[in-house]
Amino acid sequence: MDHSAIEKPSFASDYQEGAHPAILDQLCKTNLMKTPGYGADAFSEAARIKIRAACDAPEADIHFLVGGTQTNATVIDALLRSYQGVVAAETGHIHVHEAGAIEFGGHRVITLPQENGKITAEALQACNEAYWKDDNRDHMVMPGMVYLSQPTEYGTLYSLKELEAISLVCHTYHIPLYVDGARLAYALACPENDVSLPDLARLCDAFYIGGTKCGALFGEAVVFPRRDTVPHFFSIVKQHGALLAKGRIAGLQFDVLFTDGLYQKTGERAMAAAERIRAALAEKGYRFAFPSPTNQIFILLTREQAADLSQKVDLGFWEKPDEDHVIMRIATSWATSDDDVERLIACL
Amino acid sequence: MDHSAIEKPSFASDYQEGAHPAILDQLCKTNLMKTPGYGADAFSEAARIKIRAACDAPEADIHFLVGGTQTNATVIDALLRSYQGVVAAETGHIHVHEAGAIEFGGHRVITLPQENGKITAEALQACNEAYWKDDNRDHMVMPGMVYLSQPTEYGTLYSLKELEAISLVCHTYHIPLYVDGARLAYALACPENDVSLPDLARLCDAFYIGGTKCGALFGEAVVFPRRDTVPHFFSIVKQHGALLAKGRIAGLQFDVLFTDGLYQKTGERAMAAAERIRAALAEKGYRFAFPSPTNQIFILLTREQAADLSQKVDLGFWEKPDEDHVIMRIATSWATSDDDVERLIACL
Amino acid sequence: MDHSAIEKPSFASDYQEGAHPAILDQLCKTNLMKTPGYGADAFSEAARIKIRAACDAPEADIHFLVGGTQTNATVIDALLRSYQGVVAAETGHIHVHEAGAIEFGGHRVITLPQENGKITAEALQACNEAYWKDDNRDHMVMPGMVYLSQPTEYGTLYSLKELEAISLVCHTYHIPLYVDGARLAYALACPENDVSLPDLARLCDAFYIGGTKCGALFGEAVVFPRRDTVPHFFSIVKQHGALLAKGRIAGLQFDVLFTDGLYQKTGERAMAAAERIRAALAEKGYRFAFPSPTNQIFILLTREQAADLSQKVDLGFWEKPDEDHVIMRIATSWATSDDDVERLIACL
Amino acid sequence: MDHSAIEKPSFASDYQEGAHPAILDQLCKTNLMKTPGYGADAFSEAARIKIRAACDAPEADIHFLVGGTQTNATVIDALLRSYQGVVAAETGHIHVHEAGAIEFGGHRVITLPQENGKITAEALQACNEAYWKDDNRDHMVMPGMVYLSQPTEYGTLYSLKELEAISLVCHTYHIPLYVDGARLAYALACPENDVSLPDLARLCDAFYIGGTKCGALFGEAVVFPRRDTVPHFFSIVKQHGALLAKGRIAGLQFDVLFTDGLYQKTGERAMAAAERIRAALAEKGYRFAFPSPTNQIFILLTREQAADLSQKVDLGFWEKPDEDHVIMRIATSWATSDDDVERLIACL
Repeated sequence: MDHSAIEKPSFASDYQEGAHPAILDQLCKTNLMKTPGYGADAFSEAARIKIRAACDAPEADIHFLVGGTQTNATVIDALLRSYQGVVAAETGHIHVHEAGAIEFGGHRVITLPQENGKITAEALQACNEAYWKDDNRDHMVMPGMVYLSQPTEYGTLYSLKELEAISLVCHTYHIPLYVDGARLAYALACPENDVSLPDLARLCDAFYIGGTKCGALFGEAVVFPRRDTVPHFFSIVKQHGALLAKGRIAGLQFDVLFTDGLYQKTGERAMAAAERIRAALAEKGYRFAFPSPTNQIFILLTREQAADLSQKVDLGFWEKPDEDHVIMRIATSWATSDDDVERLIACL
Repeated sequence: MDHSAIEKPSFASDYQEGAHPAILDQLCKTNLMKTPGYGADAFSEAARIKIRAACDAPEADIHFLVGGTQTNATVIDALLRSYQGVVAAETGHIHVHEAGAIEFGGHRVITLPQENGKITAEALQACNEAYWKDDNRDHMVMPGMVYLSQPTEYGTLYSLKELEAISLVCHTYHIPLYVDGARLAYALACPENDVSLPDLARLCDAFYIGGTKCGALFGEAVVFPRRDTVPHFFSIVKQHGALLAKGRIAGLQFDVLFTDGLYQKTGERAMAAAERIRAALAEKGYRFAFPSPTNQIFILLTREQAADLSQKVDLGFWEKPDEDHVIMRIATSWATSDDDVERLIACL
Repeated sequence: MDHSAIEKPSFASDYQEGAHPAILDQLCKTNLMKTPGYGADAFSEAARIKIRAACDAPEADIHFLVGGTQTNATVIDALLRSYQGVVAAETGHIHVHEAGAIEFGGHRVITLPQENGKITAEALQACNEAYWKDDNRDHMVMPGMVYLSQPTEYGTLYSLKELEAISLVCHTYHIPLYVDGARLAYALACPENDVSLPDLARLCDAFYIGGTKCGALFGEAVVFPRRDTVPHFFSIVKQHGALLAKGRIAGLQFDVLFTDGLYQKTGERAMAAAERIRAALAEKGYRFAFPSPTNQIFILLTREQAADLSQKVDLGFWEKPDEDHVIMRIATSWATSDDDVERLIACL
Repeated sequence: MDHSAIEKPSFASDYQEGAHPAILDQLCKTNLMKTPGYGADAFSEAARIKIRAACDAPEADIHFLVGGTQTNATVIDALLRSYQGVVAAETGHIHVHEAGAIEFGGHRVITLPQENGKITAEALQACNEAYWKDDNRDHMVMPGMVYLSQPTEYGTLYSLKELEAISLVCHTYHIPLYVDGARLAYALACPENDVSLPDLARLCDAFYIGGTKCGALFGEAVVFPRRDTVPHFFSIVKQHGALLAKGRIAGLQFDVLFTDGLYQKTGERAMAAAERIRAALAEKGYRFAFPSPTNQIFILLTREQAADLSQKVDLGFWEKPDEDHVIMRIATSWATSDDDVERLIACL
C-alpha cells in the first residue's frame, strides 16, 4: 500500500490526521496495563475528575462516547419523552448531516430559522409559546429540549448573553438545554468567545466536549453537570451501541487532553492559524460568507476562483448559493502546520 | 493519577489491554498523514483488499464499525423488515448483554434453546416450519434472519458441518445468515476449528471479524460477501451513530491485523496459553463447565474454591448454577504472557 | 353480495358478531347529535363516570382505544423507559399474537414460564432479583413492568391471592402492573372468579376493560386508577395512531355497557352457555386441555375426532400438542344462542 | 346523562355526527351474522370488489384501517427504508397534527414550502435533485416517498395536471407517491375537481379513501393499486395496532359507501351546502383566507367579528395570522342540514 500523503496543503476538514502526539505517547506507554472495561478504569476516572474541575461542576456525571452523531442521538433520546421533539437551528448538525439518527430514535427535529447558524432566544420563546397556546397542542409534537452547537456548523459562536437568554427560556418551559461541542476547543480558544466550560455547566443540562475534531483519535465527553439528570444513562448508551468495551481508550484521551491545558492549547494552535489566514484573506479582498471567528472560515468564490484555488489547495466544498458562486470552507486544526498556512496564503 | 496495573495475574476478559504493539506502531508512524474521513481513506481500502483476499470474496462489501453491540444492531436492522425478528440462541449476546439494542431498532430476538451456546439446524428448521405452517402467522413475528456467534459466548465452535446445515435451512427459507465474530481470531486459531474465513464468506450473508477482543483498540469489520446485499448500508451505519469520522483509525487496525497473518497469530498466542491452562486444569482435576476449545475456559468451582482462587488471580464470574457452586471464566488473549500463565497455574 | 351466515353453529371465536343490540340502538338514537371529537364528548364522559364508579376509583384517568394490540402497545410504551422490557407469560398475547408491536415500540417482552397461561409471583420475584443481583445488569434489559391477562389466553383466571402476590412483587421493585382485560367480562361473570374491578383498580397501575370481545363493535377502556400516572397520555395515544376522531363511538359503547350492569350480563350469558357445554363435554368423557373456567373451553381431541367434529360445528384450532392430537377451542360469547349450544351438544 | 345536542348550528368540523343512516341500517340488519375476523369476511371482500371497480384497478390490494393518523403512519412505515424520509407540504397533516407518529416509526417528514396547502412538482424535483447532487447525501435523510393530501388541509385541490407532474417526478426518482384522502369524498364531488379515483389509482402507489370524515363511523380504505406493492402489509398493519378484530365493521361501511354511489352523494351534499355558504359569504363581502373549493371554507375575520360570530354559530378556529385577525373554518359534511345552512347564513 502506498501511504503517500495528500500532496496539496489540505484544509478540507479538522479531522484529517490521527491524534495529538501526546495522546499516542500515552496510549503506547500504558498499552499493556490491564484495566476493567466499559469506562470503569482509572484513566476514565482521572479524566472525569479533571473535566469536573475544568467545568467547576464537582457533581457532574461524565460519560465518554465515540462520535458526534452517536452522542447526539443517545443524549437526545435519553432526555426526551416519546411525544417530544428537539428544537434546533435548521442548519443544526442533527437536522442536516446525521442521516435521520434522531428520527431513528423516534423524535422530530423541530427547526427554527437560523442566522449565521444560530437561533435566538426570541424564536425559541415563540416556538414554545405557540405550542402551549395552541388548543390542538395535544395533537402536535411538544418542544421537549433545545439543541445548540458551540461553535455552530457555520463557525459562529453564541455569546454568553445569548446563551443565558436561551437557557432562561428553557428554564421557563422546563425543558433541558443541550450543547453539541464537537469543536468546543476552537470556541474556548477563540478570542471573541466569552462562554467558558463553567458557563456551559451552569447553563446547560447536558453538553459534550468534542474530542474527534479537537485532537483525539475519536471520542466525545458527555457532561451532565447535575448528578442523576438521566438515571441509567449507562444502559441507554449500551442500548445505542455507543459503549466502548475498552473504555480506557476514550478516557485516556480526555485525561491527556485535560492535563496541562492541552485541550485549550489544541484550540489555540488552530485559532492562530485561522487568524493568520483570515487576515490574509481580508487583505487580498476575499469575501467571507459568514462572520465566523473560530477555526472554520467560509469564503464566497466565483466558480472560476473556486476551481482555480482547488487546483492548489484542498478545501472543503460547502454550498452553492447561486449558479455562479460557491462557498468553500477552510478548516484549521490542532495539526495545522505553519508551513501549510504559508503555502495556502501563497495560493490566494 | 496512579497508573499501577492490577497486581494479580488477570484472566478476567480478553479486552483488558490496549492493542497489539504493531497497531500502535502504525498509528504512530502514520499519525500526521492527512486522509479523507468516513472510511474513504487508503488505510481502510487496503484493509478491505486484504480481507477480501483472506475471505476469498473478491466482491465483498466491507465496513469498519466500532464495537460489537453497535455492529449487531446495525447489521440486524439493515437485514430485517419491521415485522421480522432475528433467530438466536437464548444465550446469544444480542439476547443477553446488549441492553435491548435489537429491540430499540424495533425487532424481536426469537430465541432457540441452546446447548453449549449453540443452536441446531433442526431447531432452526422447526422454528421456521412452525411459523410458516401456523394459520395465524400474519399475527406473529416472522423469523427474518439467523444470528450465530463463532466462537459462541460459551467458547464453543460451530463445525463446518453444523454451519452448512444451518446455512441450508436459511437458504430454504430465504432468510440471511449472520455470524458475530467478536472473538473470531480465537476460533480461526483453534486446532479443533474447521470453519475458515472463506467458509464464512460462502455460507453467510453477513459476518463480522472482531477487532476489539482480538488485538485492536476497538473495531469490527463487517463483511457482506456478496456486493450490494444492503443498499445504502453507509447511511444505515451513519443513522445508527456507528460511523467513525476518522475511519482510518479502524481501517488501519484491520490493515495491520491482516498483514503477515497477524490476526491469525494473535489467535494462536491466546490458544497456546489456553491449551496450557486447560491441560493444567485437567491434570489437577478441575471440572469444566462447558467443553470450550477456544480462548475462554469455564470451570465449575465450589464457592470456597472460587473465593480462594479469586484471592490469587483475577477471573471472570460467569454464573451460579446452584447455591453451592459458581462457574468462573478464564480468558486468554493475544496479550497473555507466559509469566501470567505460569502464575495462574501455580495458583491452581 | 350473499350475506348468508355461516351455516354450522360456530364457536370459533368470541368476536364473530356485531355488537350487543343495546349498543346499536343507542348508536342509532344518537346518530345525528353533534359532539366534539377525540373523546371530549358527553358520551365518553358519561362512560368514564360509570367506569370510575364500577372500579371504585374516583380519580381514575380513562381513555377509550380501539383494539387490544393497539392498547397494549400504547400503554406499555407509555409506562416503560427505553432500556426496560415488559415481563409476561411466554403465552401472553403481546408475545405471541401481536406481530412484534411491543418491539416496534422499542421494548423486549421478557418471558416467564407459564402454567395454564399464568405466571407466578415467585417467578416474577426471581426474575427481578436475578436482574438486580447481576453485576452485568447495566448491559441487560431491565424488567420495567408486568403484563398479565385476565382471563388469560388459556381461559384461566388469576385468583385475588395470586394477583395480590404479583402486585406486591411489583411494588417491591417499583414497577407498574398492567392487566390486559380483553375478555374481562367473562372473568367478572365467572363463578370461580374472586377478582373484582375495584380489586384491579387497587392492585394495578393500569388495566383495560375489553369491549371488542365482550359485546362492543370495538373498543377497549384503559383505566389508570391513579390520576396522572402517565402525563400526556393523550399525545401518546395520538402518536400511536390510536386516537379515534369520533371518540364518542367508543365512549357511547362503554356508556351502554356500564349502564344497568350490561357488561356483567354480557359475561353471564357467555358463562351460562360455557357451563352447559362444559358439563356436556365432561359427561361425554371429553378431555380438557386446560382447566379453564371462563368462556373459552379447550378440548384435547384425536385428529379423527377433530376432523369429524369440524364437519358439524365451527371450532377454533388451537394447537397440535403431538402428531396424533389437536387442541380445539370452543368460545362462547354474549351472542351465543341457546339453539347453538343445543346444536353443539348434539354433535358431541 | 343529558344527551342534549349542541344548540347553536355547528360547522366546527366534518366529523361531529355518527354515520350516514344507510351504514347504521346495514350494521343493524347484519348484526348477528357470524363472520371471520381481521378483514377476511364477506363484507370486506364485497367492499374491495366495489372499490377496485370504482378505481378501475382490478388488481388493487385494499385494506381497511381505523383512522387517518394510523393509516398514514402504517403506510409510510411500510413504504420507507429506515434512512428515508417522507416529503410533504409543511402544512401536511403528518407534519402538523399527528403528534410525531411518523417520527415514532423512525422517519423524518421532509417539508417543502406550500401554497394554499399544496406543493409543486418543481419544488419536489428540486428537493430530490439537491439530495442526489449533494456529495454528502449519504449523511443525509433520503427523500423516500411523497405525501400529498387531496383535498389538502386548506381545502384546496391538486389538479390532474399538477398530480401528473408530481407523479412524474416520483417516477423519475423511483419513489412512491401516496395520497391522504381523509376528505376524498369532498374532492370527488367538487365541481372544480378533475382528479378521479382511476386517476389516483393510475398516478399513485398508495392512497386512502377516507371514511371517518365522509360519512362512516370510522374507517379508511387503503388502496395499493398494484398488487404486492408491500409484501406482508397485513402484518405491518397488525404490528401498528391498526388491525380491527371485527374487520367487518370497517368493511361493511365501505361496502355501503360504495353501493349506489353513496360515497359520491355524501360528498355532493356537503358540496351543495358549501357552495351555498360560499355564495352568501361572497355576497356579504367576507374575505376568504384560502381559495378552497371543497367542503372547508376559511374566512379571515377581525377578532371582533370572530367573537361575535362565535356567539351564534359554532365554527372551527384555524389560526391567528396577526394580532388583529383570526381565520375561522366552516366545515360542511354529509350531515349538514339545509336548516343549519340557513341559520348560519342568517348570522353572517
